[in-house]
Amino acid sequence: MSKAPISRFSTPEIADLPEDIRTRILAVQEKSGFVPNVFLVLARRPDEFRAFFAYHDALMDKPGKLTKAEREMIVVATSNANQCQYCVVAHGAILRIRAKDPLIADQVAINYRKADITDRQKAMLDFAMTVAFEAYAVDDADLAQLRSHGFSEEDAWDIAAIAAFFGMSNRLANVTNMRPNDEFYTMGRT
Amino acid sequence: MSKAPISRFSTPEIADLPEDIRTRILAVQEKSGFVPNVFLVLARRPDEFRAFFAYHDALMDKPGKLTKAEREMIVVATSNANQCQYCVVAHGAILRIRAKDPLIADQVAINYRKADITDRQKAMLDFAMTVAFEAYAVDDADLAQLRSHGFSEEDAWDIAAIAAFFGMSNRLANVTNMRPNDEFYTMGRT
Amino acid sequence: MSKAPISRFSTPEIADLPEDIRTRILAVQEKSGFVPNVFLVLARRPDEFRAFFAYHDALMDKPGKLTKAEREMIVVATSNANQCQYCVVAHGAILRIRAKDPLIADQVAINYRKADITDRQKAMLDFAMTVAFEAYAVDDADLAQLRSHGFSEEDAWDIAAIAAFFGMSNRLANVTNMRPNDEFYTMGRT
Amino acid sequence: MSKAPISRFSTPEIADLPEDIRTRILAVQEKSGFVPNVFLVLARRPDEFRAFFAYHDALMDKPGKLTKAEREMIVVATSNANQCQYCVVAHGAILRIRAKDPLIADQVAINYRKADITDRQKAMLDFAMTVAFEAYAVDDADLAQLRSHGFSEEDAWDIAAIAAFFGMSNRLANVTNMRPNDEFYTMGRT
Amino acid sequence: MSKAPISRFSTPEIADLPEDIRTRILAVQEKSGFVPNVFLVLARRPDEFRAFFAYHDALMDKPGKLTKAEREMIVVATSNANQCQYCVVAHGAILRIRAKDPLIADQVAINYRKADITDRQKAMLDFAMTVAFEAYAVDDADLAQLRSHGFSEEDAWDIAAIAAFFGMSNRLANVTNMRPNDEFYTMGRT
Amino acid sequence: MSKAPISRFSTPEIADLPEDIRTRILAVQEKSGFVPNVFLVLARRPDEFRAFFAYHDALMDKPGKLTKAEREMIVVATSNANQCQYCVVAHGAILRIRAKDPLIADQVAINYRKADITDRQKAMLDFAMTVAFEAYAVDDADLAQLRSHGFSEEDAWDIAAIAAFFGMSNRLANVTNMRPNDEFYTMGRT
Repeated sequence: MSKAPISRFSTPEIADLPEDIRTRILAVQEKSGFVPNVFLVLARRPDEFRAFFAYHDALMDKPGKLTKAEREMIVVATSNANQCQYCVVAHGAILRIRAKDPLIADQVAINYRKADITDRQKAMLDFAMTVAFEAYAVDDADLAQLRSHGFSEEDAWDIAAIAAFFGMSNRLANVTNMRPNDEFYTMGRT
Repeated sequence: MSKAPISRFSTPEIADLPEDIRTRILAVQEKSGFVPNVFLVLARRPDEFRAFFAYHDALMDKPGKLTKAEREMIVVATSNANQCQYCVVAHGAILRIRAKDPLIADQVAINYRKADITDRQKAMLDFAMTVAFEAYAVDDADLAQLRSHGFSEEDAWDIAAIAAFFGMSNRLANVTNMRPNDEFYTMGRT
Repeated sequence: MSKAPISRFSTPEIADLPEDIRTRILAVQEKSGFVPNVFLVLARRPDEFRAFFAYHDALMDKPGKLTKAEREMIVVATSNANQCQYCVVAHGAILRIRAKDPLIADQVAINYRKADITDRQKAMLDFAMTVAFEAYAVDDADLAQLRSHGFSEEDAWDIAAIAAFFGMSNRLANVTNMRPNDEFYTMGRT
Repeated sequence: MSKAPISRFSTPEIADLPEDIRTRILAVQEKSGFVPNVFLVLARRPDEFRAFFAYHDALMDKPGKLTKAEREMIVVATSNANQCQYCVVAHGAILRIRAKDPLIADQVAINYRKADITDRQKAMLDFAMTVAFEAYAVDDADLAQLRSHGFSEEDAWDIAAIAAFFGMSNRLANVTNMRPNDEFYTMGRT
Repeated sequence: MSKAPISRFSTPEIADLPEDIRTRILAVQEKSGFVPNVFLVLARRPDEFRAFFAYHDALMDKPGKLTKAEREMIVVATSNANQCQYCVVAHGAILRIRAKDPLIADQVAINYRKADITDRQKAMLDFAMTVAFEAYAVDDADLAQLRSHGFSEEDAWDIAAIAAFFGMSNRLANVTNMRPNDEFYTMGRT
Repeated sequence: MSKAPISRFSTPEIADLPEDIRTRILAVQEKSGFVPNVFLVLARRPDEFRAFFAYHDALMDKPGKLTKAEREMIVVATSNANQCQYCVVAHGAILRIRAKDPLIADQVAINYRKADITDRQKAMLDFAMTVAFEAYAVDDADLAQLRSHGFSEEDAWDIAAIAAFFGMSNRLANVTNMRPNDEFYTMGRT
């Protein structure tokens, strides 16, 4: 079986991209050893690319009480529920690395209720799933439940915003048939 | 019954906002006569605010084959399915104005299949709803269906990206309990 | 875009209708200034017309502890969940008038949990939605919840009967493609 | 296990009922040998009782191309999908009698797709189920599908109206905990 | 309407079956007076037949705190939710006989929440339905709920295993279009 | 975070097991280098254990036109949809080994529609998912669709039986909180 292309839509050549986008992509390549396909697939639309990664960085790469591993848990749990291959495979790799735990990503993706995570983290993921699938019903009781696990109002916003942002990302990846790079599958597994 | 506040979370004073955000908000106020609450609610997080509106503008305020009214139809149809009060009321107003049609927003929100729109527009909204609720199943047949109505690959991307972006926006508005400004309810109705 | 007809099925001439039905329709026209399309669409079947409006009046135009505005809230909330264009637009107008509130109908239709209504009214609508979508699971706990908000056994029957009757009405309107009269869209908005 | 009462709500004494209602109930008792509980449960509200049975008779006891057995099939299939004990048991009995077939009611209730009925009847029930669960999506293709099986526009209305009316009835029976009379269980089985 | 065959797939002649399977089938025929179709339909695959009935017997014909009638309640309630004609009709007959109650099977099948069974049995069926439709969410609270009704850990396993096994059986019966024998419909009704 | 135990229920000591079960378990341990937890968790019930593995072997370890890798694809795709951690992790490992493809298991689990598999295999998985979630609606068109991809009637039975059997297995694993052995996560990844 030959491999599927990285996107249902054509992708630009890196050399043809606007300077800032090319620079960002080359920096990632330098750091990771490869270019994650999300950069190539979204680069087809430079303005959307810039907004997407600015939003991503504002949510995932900032200080705050949620650890980086916890943010990735939110991505992995909601992305599998949305059946997003790219997001589960790529962020599963990042989660394994951030959490220094080779098992956690598969556990959280398939059924976070049975993962080796704390009750506080399960409450975080319960809320993230509610945001992903029933945001219309979020009410004060949900916020109180988070508070009972020590989450502040800022944390609640972070959880919700990450679940919402990756809900968008999951849909884009599914519509474009975005292919996970082979490298992600084994990262952080040993 | 007293009115609910504009957000479940506290909102900043305009005077305390970073210069670029304050400027944008004041420009909107100047143009519209009021500040749509989404600006105040999201301004609590300046970096996310900037990315959100950059993304919004990249999708909604650019040239392309989809008319501005058609883009708003996508927002209105998917937002009612997501039960997002702010997005239906605010973008319903914009849709009425863009389409110069006082009836269209309510029709599209409640059941676009029965709205006074073209078959091509219904196909556009069918695809948008698939992206919103079953993006995992999007396949070549969906794209072919769009093509049969004259939509290009670029148009398909636009429809999907708008549905995905407002899926995020709907979730943020529902989690924050974002209140639509009273002004929106009657705009464009006469 | 030309307007859709008022029904997928042919509708009778008023002059050809049985006396009692013609009289009722002309009385409504006299009072409202127009004939709401539901009268014309259902008049195709005189016996069903008579039963439908007798039932409607028994539930909506009678004394009881639920206010007329509250009864319309039930109609509007369940009808949007059933995606019934006619019922949301027509009863939204009536709700605005009964409640003397130009915003309430859109709020209740899109997401009643975030409307400017009382907690008691939200409990009423929670029960109405359970009747509309999960009546098989209604149990003593639901009735107790209503009682805790001051609703009597009679009120519970009223809420359930209105939700059930308009569930029928929503289905008839959707199957017939019943078109809301243009007049309803702006009634009670100012 | 003692038997549950016939309704969650109190039911009136037959002797205390308005003349027309008492007469109707006694006539049914005369004919059937017992009073079906739906008469007693709904008699608590005389105006609603009158409208309910007027509507019922207009749909179920009139001439038309659908046979009486076919109308009962619609009731039985949709009522089991709505988990309505009273309606499946009572109308199952009527269906067995009308169709002179002791097996048909259970087959149609549990999975009509596998019942000993004609393809035309399966198409009728497919449409009835769409009306019961997705009326918002009914479109010209559904009507064309019915036509391809020989159903007229009048038949389509009948199928839809029966599915819609019993959708209301199912909800009322579930909310009132309406108990099927023991007599229904075995009627028409031999 | 002619009757449907007992399976969508061809079924073997009893005489051609392996000795042990033929012996079991003849013993059932001797005892019941007819061969339940599940034996003929599954005999097409001797190894699967042997495993299926070994599993069935291990769950249904053994000592334990759940009565045989209670085990059949689990089968009947979950099988109707899975729309399995064979399982509801055949096990409904067995339930009537085991419980010595001509009404119970139809009640439990259509809506067990309103059946003439104990609260403890309703809790048992609530758990069985959770296993059938949301097993991924089973947690300690479900087990505690069972314990509060006097169910042991062994009982919990039994309920879950029966719901899971008949979930498999329901799927096999639906895919094969397994036809219930006519005899089952009236067994235990008088 | 300490690791969860291998089951919510207590598990027997291997030394205490009946001879045939102990022998099977030791043989697996010899071959694999560890005892997959499913053997220990299910051994609590020897008769059910024997039937479970007899059924498993009859479906998974026999000759037939479906390759062993294809059978594992069915397990992996349906098990992730059922959120079964044990089954996805353990059978994902087996799938990688059988298919000699380190990427295939994650692809098939998360969204088989986008996996590097043939159209024929996607049709096989479409049917397996229908069996897992809508078996009541399986009809001749589903079988015809399989035939158009070269699947025989025997193959259809195999696909359906595997999906049904692992639907049972998924439910048992979720109810028991069956923990995947750490060894499975990395098997076949390089």
